[in-house]
Amino acid sequence: MAKITKVSPLAPASFPDLPQVKGVSFASAAAGVKYQGRDDVTLIRLAAGSAVAGAFTRSATRAACILDNQAKLDGTPSSEAGAAIIINSGNANAFTGRNGQEAVDRVTGAVAGALDLPQGRVFSSSTGVIGEPLPAERITAVIGDMAARLSEGGIADAASAIMTTDTFPKGASARVDGDGGEIVIAGIAKGSGMIAPDMATMLVYIFTDAKIAPALLQEALDLHLDTTFNAITVDSDTSTSDALIIGATGASPAAEITDLRAGAGTAFAQALGEVMLDLAQQVVRDGEGATKFVEIAVTGAASDADAHKIAMAIANSPLVKTAIAGEDANWGRVVAAVGKSGAKADRDRLTIRFGDMVLAENGWRAPSYDEVSASDYMKRDTLLIGVDLGLGDGSKTVWTCDLTHGYIDINADYRS
Amino acid sequence: MAKITKVSPLAPASFPDLPQVKGVSFASAAAGVKYQGRDDVTLIRLAAGSAVAGAFTRSATRAACILDNQAKLDGTPSSEAGAAIIINSGNANAFTGRNGQEAVDRVTGAVAGALDLPQGRVFSSSTGVIGEPLPAERITAVIGDMAARLSEGGIADAASAIMTTDTFPKGASARVDGDGGEIVIAGIAKGSGMIAPDMATMLVYIFTDAKIAPALLQEALDLHLDTTFNAITVDSDTSTSDALIIGATGASPAAEITDLRAGAGTAFAQALGEVMLDLAQQVVRDGEGATKFVEIAVTGAASDADAHKIAMAIANSPLVKTAIAGEDANWGRVVAAVGKSGAKADRDRLTIRFGDMVLAENGWRAPSYDEVSASDYMKRDTLLIGVDLGLGDGSKTVWTCDLTHGYIDINADYRS
Repeated sequence: MAKITKVSPLAPASFPDLPQVKGVSFASAAAGVKYQGRDDVTLIRLAAGSAVAGAFTRSATRAACILDNQAKLDGTPSSEAGAAIIINSGNANAFTGRNGQEAVDRVTGAVAGALDLPQGRVFSSSTGVIGEPLPAERITAVIGDMAARLSEGGIADAASAIMTTDTFPKGASARVDGDGGEIVIAGIAKGSGMIAPDMATMLVYIFTDAKIAPALLQEALDLHLDTTFNAITVDSDTSTSDALIIGATGASPAAEITDLRAGAGTAFAQALGEVMLDLAQQVVRDGEGATKFVEIAVTGAASDADAHKIAMAIANSPLVKTAIAGEDANWGRVVAAVGKSGAKADRDRLTIRFGDMVLAENGWRAPSYDEVSASDYMKRDTLLIGVDLGLGDGSKTVWTCDLTHGYIDINADYRS
Repeated sequence: MAKITKVSPLAPASFPDLPQVKGVSFASAAAGVKYQGRDDVTLIRLAAGSAVAGAFTRSATRAACILDNQAKLDGTPSSEAGAAIIINSGNANAFTGRNGQEAVDRVTGAVAGALDLPQGRVFSSSTGVIGEPLPAERITAVIGDMAARLSEGGIADAASAIMTTDTFPKGASARVDGDGGEIVIAGIAKGSGMIAPDMATMLVYIFTDAKIAPALLQEALDLHLDTTFNAITVDSDTSTSDALIIGATGASPAAEITDLRAGAGTAFAQALGEVMLDLAQQVVRDGEGATKFVEIAVTGAASDADAHKIAMAIANSPLVKTAIAGEDANWGRVVAAVGKSGAKADRDRLTIRFGDMVLAENGWRAPSYDEVSASDYMKRDTLLIGVDLGLGDGSKTVWTCDLTHGYIDINADYRS
């Protein structure tokens, strides 16, 4: 994959200038897990007293580190000791049998020793090839060095070290007026292929200096999962390794957040949602081979669940995605995707819009339909496909990208 | 799409020599519905006394002709009058509102007039672009000519006239020893993109001279749908227009089939299943851009339904399909597809085979795994991926093809 070096045309102009989050420090290193000549391991330390929460893939074949993180979060909600996260790219440590858990134990044990933390507070992520044994010793060999170099300014390097087929590092941040001081939120993400909905997809790490209990932090996270990371798809494939971990250090001078439905709590939850959406959309913008960023907004469905089914059927349709790649305003394929979704639909009440243009309505091509304008619209790099079912109040918006030769290039020889 | 002229590398060496089915006659013509310089309309007549049965797409946005066929089959099960089928390629007459049904009425009405049949016994299919008005007058203009040229030997021309992005015409046949004489079965199919499971996918026409009542003919058809046309997928997309129509003329000297579970009835049902499987597999072999024909055999699942979910999750995974295109024995992606399927799976009981090679077992790469042999195996053009869940007796076999640059080429500018 090192061959794919061209940055996505949908990438932001530059990596954002992320604020430092007091109590969170980072170090990255080149361990040679698989890649050579680049950082591939990141260590993150969260200060004593930090709250940690997370969301993980529901894949039935999820990786050892996912099972380990879930067990640790369930088992040790207390945050007195602080926490750490150790991440490697290049190897997913998935489908590696008992060896998988042994590797997780070795790596998180080494971090616990180096940082004087209980092992139950050391979380881990591995991303890359499935089914290859994780060379844990290459990771443990660099932990001491990273522990000595931890710095609150290291988040940008971390965003790069966790990349696999990503073409740009992904970061987002927000500042919130807390009661008695500012709260900052900063997050990084990686992901570009094997991205699918209905999971906390990809790897995402979000940090804040807010003072907030673990359960409420989890609640704030859960508030936004369905409209952010569970509302994107690149290729309908779901990873064995996807994880979102959020850590709150409590180092902000602002008062503790105890209610997400009032005052600073509401502002915090909203800002967190914005950071999550920004990161999720950046993942789509780095979809393997993507040349178009596509928002699919479904309204008027019989239910929100139906709207979700329809939006994802469109977003995952290879025929819709290749038409977009070809800049062909082929709304007939959108109709077909609605039809196959399994959700309730009435052909004669369906309205389809590309941007502001109505292409089809009342079961028929719109009288105002203009092929030239529609074709012009398709040349844009950001597209909106609007589908109204005319049946009820159900709605859902999801984001995806097109399916191009680039996707085939990347995935027909990722491993070899 | 006329630009795509290269025949699939997975095509049979030649179109099979199909037997004539007494009582079924064919004529094709160039109506210029969309394509120029080729036949694009086919008329098929079934003799008086023929039984007709069918299976149709369950898409919520199915085409006017599908709704019309279903209504006619429900409304006039009697077969005394004979029947006809009129098929055009180049335009799906789908999502064409009230105009869609009007076009169906004009075309089937013209056939009824030309062949002196009740309009309720004239079935129709349209395949091609969605959302464009069907130029019914171009079709009705050639019906008189076709009616005058109907011939029992015209099935091969019909197989070509119904093609859209197909690169080869598809046919299959069988002969059955009936009680008192031979029964023949001959079928044709078209389909290469927008092929997905859980529907009677694509266009398929099967004819037999068996004497059999419509209800029993339908039963014989239904017996095999799940293991043939509902067990293939090219791109996970489902057409608005898919239809399978079977006609039985009763012209064979063999005695009437009254029981599919005894004697000649069993032989007939089995032969019909073989013709259906042959045609279904030919559709996969003509999958848009396909270079590999892939059988996915799932065993040991908790239930047949789970086995189906897993097999289709693998068959529809863009990452599995691109790995196959790249001849990469990336079984990790098969593991990921099992995990995302939603079916019950236990990582540590999973066995994955490519051909006879065990690649992974007991949640881990197999000790016998040999990368060189695995890579050699992937160079074949017909591949078997075996997945055993180790949980129960559920099993399902499906067929698919790889996802290549050819698929993108064809679908990024099909319409324009």
